[in-house]
Amino acid sequence: LIKSVASSLLVDKGNHRHFMAKEIHEQPEVISHTLANYIDMGEATVSVPDFGVDASTLSRATISACGTAYYAGLVGKYWIERYARLPVEIDVASEMRYREPPMTAGGLALFVSQSGETADTLAVLRHARAEGQRVASVVNVRTSTIARESDVALPTLAGPEIGVASTKAFTCQLSVLACLAIGLGRARGVIDREQERALVQSLVEVPRHISNILRNESQYEAIASLLSKARDVLYLGRGTSYPLALEGALKLKEISYIHAEGYAAGELKHGPIALIDENVPVIVVAPKDALFEKTVSNMQEVASRGGQIILISDADPEEVGCRVAAHIAMPKATEFASPLLYAVPVQLLAYYTAVAMGTDVDQPRNLAKSVTVE
Amino acid sequence: LIKSVASSLLVDKGNHRHFMAKEIHEQPEVISHTLANYIDMGEATVSVPDFGVDASTLSRATISACGTAYYAGLVGKYWIERYARLPVEIDVASEMRYREPPMTAGGLALFVSQSGETADTLAVLRHARAEGQRVASVVNVRTSTIARESDVALPTLAGPEIGVASTKAFTCQLSVLACLAIGLGRARGVIDREQERALVQSLVEVPRHISNILRNESQYEAIASLLSKARDVLYLGRGTSYPLALEGALKLKEISYIHAEGYAAGELKHGPIALIDENVPVIVVAPKDALFEKTVSNMQEVASRGGQIILISDADPEEVGCRVAAHIAMPKATEFASPLLYAVPVQLLAYYTAVAMGTDVDQPRNLAKSVTVE
Repeated sequence: LIKSVASSLLVDKGNHRHFMAKEIHEQPEVISHTLANYIDMGEATVSVPDFGVDASTLSRATISACGTAYYAGLVGKYWIERYARLPVEIDVASEMRYREPPMTAGGLALFVSQSGETADTLAVLRHARAEGQRVASVVNVRTSTIARESDVALPTLAGPEIGVASTKAFTCQLSVLACLAIGLGRARGVIDREQERALVQSLVEVPRHISNILRNESQYEAIASLLSKARDVLYLGRGTSYPLALEGALKLKEISYIHAEGYAAGELKHGPIALIDENVPVIVVAPKDALFEKTVSNMQEVASRGGQIILISDADPEEVGCRVAAHIAMPKATEFASPLLYAVPVQLLAYYTAVAMGTDVDQPRNLAKSVTVE
Repeated sequence: LIKSVASSLLVDKGNHRHFMAKEIHEQPEVISHTLANYIDMGEATVSVPDFGVDASTLSRATISACGTAYYAGLVGKYWIERYARLPVEIDVASEMRYREPPMTAGGLALFVSQSGETADTLAVLRHARAEGQRVASVVNVRTSTIARESDVALPTLAGPEIGVASTKAFTCQLSVLACLAIGLGRARGVIDREQERALVQSLVEVPRHISNILRNESQYEAIASLLSKARDVLYLGRGTSYPLALEGALKLKEISYIHAEGYAAGELKHGPIALIDENVPVIVVAPKDALFEKTVSNMQEVASRGGQIILISDADPEEVGCRVAAHIAMPKATEFASPLLYAVPVQLLAYYTAVAMGTDVDQPRNLAKSVTVE
């Protein structure tokens, strides 16, 4: 009874036109809650539950998920490989399920699912268990099947997500995976106490940065007007910005029905650049990190072929050496925390484009919130 | 001197309008040559060079490549995991290069590159070598940098490929990777002599099957006429048909400039199905294998939303329980050999669509044959 009262309170749109807008705006708060579940703020340390395996002797982990949760997992792979030096294999659950990949006993199998009921993800979980893996899952519903069948459930504290296109669940998944990467890195001796403190500090600053991003929302309407006239859009990124390019494209597809596609920027010359002309906007996710110059060089190729560039970056647009149609200025943050911040403008671009096009933002055609059948 | 005479003979278009058409038609011959380099036809056994590592104790391999070669590598991953039970991590070279993934010393690092000069692939090769990997490469140019810097070069015998969009080089890469999977499977004791014989036999039949596919070329013009009116196309597949869906989409992008995107069929419901309406043709690569029924269920979802389906399959279209706009009938072949066969219709669809649209098939805009810079 208490639960249903809480649910009915939570599913109110508040002052927002759509649940999706409300959920985008809840992110500073729900990310704070989620981080607080894994971080000791006073000590600036991370604590993740004991997986029942010795992290220092782990030789490999796998991550499996679908849709947006898969892209969160892909960021997680980059983080875990970088900060814990643990090789991670990732695959969409519908593929991993049927190829029944060989898994060395004693490995760690990670799953990411908002609902905790995603059919393909659950099937891989059961396969992994049969192959002797320790099973951990990042879920938003603690009572879900995936949570119950895991050795360790790592909850996100996003609260109920009503909009079909996932937003706050995604950034809360990233928050948990970031803590997990730090925890594994410490356990494996890859990062020391000082590095842990610095990484934790950069996560703690995320909600404040996102609040600032959300204060500059007015600029998105003009860019959305440009995007709403496009039939096709490319999204480019490198490193952890590559999964964000994929997620940005998925969001646009889901709610605006524009055919957006995400690409690793380095693959551009191996084919997709043939698509570029003045009718295809190219959205570039390019924080000023170690890969920035490489991404800029891909942007210049796009520009020289007439492509309209929308740059999401904390760099000065003067630095890119080519014309950009629009620049979404981002706050300075660490490389580690960037994916959490850059998730927000790609959500807002999709949201405002859908609003401009008049689609049903919260209930896009053909889609269901959780895919509990194959 | 002899070499330059040979080259000038080989770069003739023959009776074909484009190099791409000529190269598609050369496939039965060049695949035969390539297979003969790795197969003892009399004994029906495979021999692959000694990598200098004990295959039976290998715990992991990596594959790295760009563009079409990456999709060949992705099929290779499925084969090696299935027939040699060796976990394979794969990534596009431009991503693997900069994330500098942890690699356990003594592992096997595989590279795939037509030219053998692809800049990002070469960079990963050098990283892998520094990490103590044994390096093997599948290359079409034996004198290339990638071949020279490998412990073992596994040549494809495709001959010079002039069309910018790769065709025969792709199927020859698949041929080598298929032999490699059998060889590793034997060395690891996963498949026995009888299974080896059966797998080899199914490869040996590939050139004949492809010749038959090429005899039914007339049907492609009508389907290409349908595709040439589309602005957006989806390509779906599961298992080894998933990389073929990606490759089919890339071919269409490259030479027809239609925005085609390949998807794992199981991911359809997690977003891209929102795009489906009567204006978006959906090409489904669905050999009648263990995953056929799953793919059919995704097709039915597309059909119920008005999507125009082009089915590439050896199944009877009656079996799919929904209307298909076109059916490309494929010969019956083994599941193992399917990717080699199904590569051909996706090439022909792209080719005839580009011809219908009047684009420059052999020299598509914005693209170079080899990407030797970043």
